[in-house]
Amino acid sequence: MTLESLSTPAALIDVARMNHNIERMQQRMNTLGVSFRPHVKTTKCEQVVKAQMDAGARGITVSTLKEAEQFFVSGIRDIVYAVGMAPPKLPRALALRRQGCDLKIVADSVACAEAIVAFGREHNERFEVWIEVDVDGHRSGIAPGDDTLLAVATVLSEGGMHVGGVLAHAGSSYDYDANEELVRIAEQERSGCVRAAERIRAAGLPCDVVSIGSTPTALAAEHLEGVTEVRAGVYVMFDLVMHNVGVNDTSEIALSVLTTVIGHQSEKGWAIVDAGWMAMSRDRGTQRQKRDFGYGLVCLESGEVLGEYLMSSANQEHGIVSRSGTPDREIEQRFPIGTRLRILPNHACATGAQHPAYQALSADGSVEAWPRFYGW
Amino acid sequence: MTLESLSTPAALIDVARMNHNIERMQQRMNTLGVSFRPHVKTTKCEQVVKAQMDAGARGITVSTLKEAEQFFVSGIRDIVYAVGMAPPKLPRALALRRQGCDLKIVADSVACAEAIVAFGREHNERFEVWIEVDVDGHRSGIAPGDDTLLAVATVLSEGGMHVGGVLAHAGSSYDYDANEELVRIAEQERSGCVRAAERIRAAGLPCDVVSIGSTPTALAAEHLEGVTEVRAGVYVMFDLVMHNVGVNDTSEIALSVLTTVIGHQSEKGWAIVDAGWMAMSRDRGTQRQKRDFGYGLVCLESGEVLGEYLMSSANQEHGIVSRSGTPDREIEQRFPIGTRLRILPNHACATGAQHPAYQALSADGSVEAWPRFYGW
Repeated sequence: MTLESLSTPAALIDVARMNHNIERMQQRMNTLGVSFRPHVKTTKCEQVVKAQMDAGARGITVSTLKEAEQFFVSGIRDIVYAVGMAPPKLPRALALRRQGCDLKIVADSVACAEAIVAFGREHNERFEVWIEVDVDGHRSGIAPGDDTLLAVATVLSEGGMHVGGVLAHAGSSYDYDANEELVRIAEQERSGCVRAAERIRAAGLPCDVVSIGSTPTALAAEHLEGVTEVRAGVYVMFDLVMHNVGVNDTSEIALSVLTTVIGHQSEKGWAIVDAGWMAMSRDRGTQRQKRDFGYGLVCLESGEVLGEYLMSSANQEHGIVSRSGTPDREIEQRFPIGTRLRILPNHACATGAQHPAYQALSADGSVEAWPRFYGW
Repeated sequence: MTLESLSTPAALIDVARMNHNIERMQQRMNTLGVSFRPHVKTTKCEQVVKAQMDAGARGITVSTLKEAEQFFVSGIRDIVYAVGMAPPKLPRALALRRQGCDLKIVADSVACAEAIVAFGREHNERFEVWIEVDVDGHRSGIAPGDDTLLAVATVLSEGGMHVGGVLAHAGSSYDYDANEELVRIAEQERSGCVRAAERIRAAGLPCDVVSIGSTPTALAAEHLEGVTEVRAGVYVMFDLVMHNVGVNDTSEIALSVLTTVIGHQSEKGWAIVDAGWMAMSRDRGTQRQKRDFGYGLVCLESGEVLGEYLMSSANQEHGIVSRSGTPDREIEQRFPIGTRLRILPNHACATGAQHPAYQALSADGSVEAWPRFYGW
């Protein structure tokens, strides 16, 4: 297959850019002296994850047990399920471990730890549990100075479970766009997570792993003393949200949606395309950032960025492409019916999830379908 | 299966509510004296569409050729593909017609009409084409008074194609929340589309079908003189956007996402649940409406609405449930870990699309998986 033979809309991966992104992150982790554990929620795609592992990643991070199950089948044993464990999901986690998967689960409360202990004892399973640490008030986790941290570790340890480590995610890093802020958040993530580990160790409990990460902090951290591994996901594709945060150029965005012009409203300067929010996702992550890209930034089919043209609006299977500022009343001549465009997405995780497969475009012009899965 | 045995997150359909919604719309169409052609993009689910057909629908509307292909396989012949035809997709449309599908395609430009004529002649196929009419400046289509309408009809007719009718969608109806406004938009949709048909007929060309529709206008129209059929999609589930528009009560919303509480930040009044934007979609359609429901309105597992609790924020697999106004510092006791909640969605089309299957909950408490498909 070639680019020209693809039906639209299609989720296109520029394989050279993807490999550049993988190499960039892995090199950085090597320099910082930590293991790298990519978050596979971004792509849920075997070929992408294989490229990440081949470049030097050690183990993966997942956001659902389905990801754990699928990637275990494709040969990956070392998996962290980085969402707080819902007690009813323990049987699925147990089934994975019994099949030989080195699955780590996460807890951030005494109630959750007690549920894990009760279930683990009942089934004679010593679960490895990582305790989630809250370093920025973003979402889940226990603050490093909160004694709940020690209570959870104690419940797990005394209950016969294995306290494997601590894990933090500085999700608030997405809210900034200046390097000095990212450096500050990265240091806050590092020091908070290390402090939590030290408190657990000081209480005489084990805590081998100190796991942190988000794409912006992974790229901004000045040192990672005390950290053993980093997790990041969206870096493999990058996107417009990350571009606004300041960690990638638009020329590094590896994911785009290929679309065809199907109509115009010339008076308004609109071209209508056959990719709407179903193909782009409803993610409007750039809405409150320094530049709002609407539903995406328009490129020619070749990939050349047309800086002024955005997908300014979207319905389910219709997108409206228009020029920022003054309407382009010659848009019908510029992009006649049948013209193919690529749209760079706001958020690669959300856009990828709308598609059953990626179309991987190699430098030689060939295209290969890389399936991705969804659901829970 | 029962509600209790479901793993979370899950897209739950309350079958009694769905049947009520189907009956309500079909009765209304019967009273108005028009055919009803549901838009199946909302659910892409065989069981739901069968219920719509069994209640009296005649044919279906689709937003992708994949929907046409799948529903043709399941026995539906009369299908309108209601997105402007991209010329490269004509071979797929031809393949469907050659298999016996009565597929209608859509054009709103001379360029598109010419491409259809050229391809139709080349393959000796007389495509049935409906011309898209723009009644509210919302998206695609030709204004009823624009002579392009006659030019397109002439190109198609002289080129040997079958001008089957005109089609309009008053998408701007979603922007209102007062019944008198909906009545006005419905009348504008009706009269604009009828006028377009009359102009085509006055030019000596055929135009049998006058097809209009959106959920709000279908429910608000006072009469449909000159209209032959109505299309609507989201009415089958309803959602919070439609609730804000004023066409359904929250007790009529048939789709919800079942989720489990996995943690808390008690100081902030947050419960963390295992449904994030991957399960709800990124659709924030209520953001600019009279009430912003965040990522959804929280109900007990039984379906009882808790009017003050919203999913106020979402990450990929984490949702934050909180009370509107003052934080609920007793939220940990109110919704302990393991509590199951249902979240009513902003937009049923977008939320459904995130799930490989619906879980259909019948009045007797039994649950059946109803698969849905995705992709193009």
